[in-house]
Amino acid sequence: MLLMSFEDWLPDSGLARETREYVAGQEEPFLFNHSVRSYLFATVSAHARQLAPAVDYDDELLFVSCLMHDIGLAGGHSGNQRFEVDGADIAVEFLSARGLDADRADIVWQAIALHTSPGIAERRPLEVALTRAGIALDFGAGAETIDDSLATEVHRALPRLDIARRLTDAIVCQAQNNPTKAPAYSTPGELVRERSQPPHITRLEQLANHGRWGS
Amino acid sequence: MLLMSFEDWLPDSGLARETREYVAGQEEPFLFNHSVRSYLFATVSAHARQLAPAVDYDDELLFVSCLMHDIGLAGGHSGNQRFEVDGADIAVEFLSARGLDADRADIVWQAIALHTSPGIAERRPLEVALTRAGIALDFGAGAETIDDSLATEVHRALPRLDIARRLTDAIVCQAQNNPTKAPAYSTPGELVRERSQPPHITRLEQLANHGRWGS
Repeated sequence: MLLMSFEDWLPDSGLARETREYVAGQEEPFLFNHSVRSYLFATVSAHARQLAPAVDYDDELLFVSCLMHDIGLAGGHSGNQRFEVDGADIAVEFLSARGLDADRADIVWQAIALHTSPGIAERRPLEVALTRAGIALDFGAGAETIDDSLATEVHRALPRLDIARRLTDAIVCQAQNNPTKAPAYSTPGELVRERSQPPHITRLEQLANHGRWGS
Repeated sequence: MLLMSFEDWLPDSGLARETREYVAGQEEPFLFNHSVRSYLFATVSAHARQLAPAVDYDDELLFVSCLMHDIGLAGGHSGNQRFEVDGADIAVEFLSARGLDADRADIVWQAIALHTSPGIAERRPLEVALTRAGIALDFGAGAETIDDSLATEVHRALPRLDIARRLTDAIVCQAQNNPTKAPAYSTPGELVRERSQPPHITRLEQLANHGRWGS
């Protein structure tokens, strides 16, 4: 594979550029890098499934969904809902104000709200399923399918910065301040529970630690 | 409140009747009774929110969603997905074959697939949110809002039959036969984990045991 700068892979619509600038200004690099990597890996997943942008899925929706999937963890964005749902609301507000129509906005809402819902996101519209697939790849699930040189290039441009631990820290910190953000039987709730009980490390972090990316 | 037979509360469309007969034939009484009670409590929840059938929500969709929400646990209906998603597929297949259009069928799919997703179902179309609200009431969450005489009448007509324990048994049994049905960070996965670790009782069962209905 001929490697390009990762920036050449990103959609260049006005909405995509505005979204990228917005998220870069809101999120710490560990979250922003994870979000961009998730998009890149989502497109790899789409290609592996022989799905083509514009034909099979809406690449702009996939991009903004991946870029904004953790925006509910950025400073100042925490409401009273689980971070995925707060983030979905923030994304829809941002994108609708820039002209995204309601039907496409709802797909972004689902992609973000359901990105921690195993077995459900996979069955929603393709952009929703691919968002989850890209995020899972960035935590090492199925990452053996990623080409070595691509993986090296992506991680050189977008370092991991201990994403699994710091993401978990952010979710747990929000819940400590507001337990309504971490209901039982939700991913945030289970992460909080795992951190509070021996061995005090989450399955998410263990998956990442033992996966191809090593953290 | 003037009490009627609970049957007078149920929608009487052909689709509603067929659905009820189908589920009654597929599910053991502990599941069927829970499903019908969930619908009745969902309508109580709707009324408390000043939402009216036909005006604010589609009562037929709410009924079939509640009636079929655990169909993925009925004998012979277990595929390779979590029971909520297998059940959503079964419901859509059944209802589409009887003329339900794709948009309404997707609402039923979401209501069933998301009924164990806290904080997410509440934000989807009203029929999805009300389905979850009715189920939660049947496990005792918020049940103090239910009128005493109504509660007595509903439970006389539709006995509880140890629903929380037997429902959990059914989910755990499916997962023992096929672990792919219980992924980490999903409700089925967490129920399996809770049953496997001290004190070997799930938070769902504890909620029910300590709630108004007592089990």
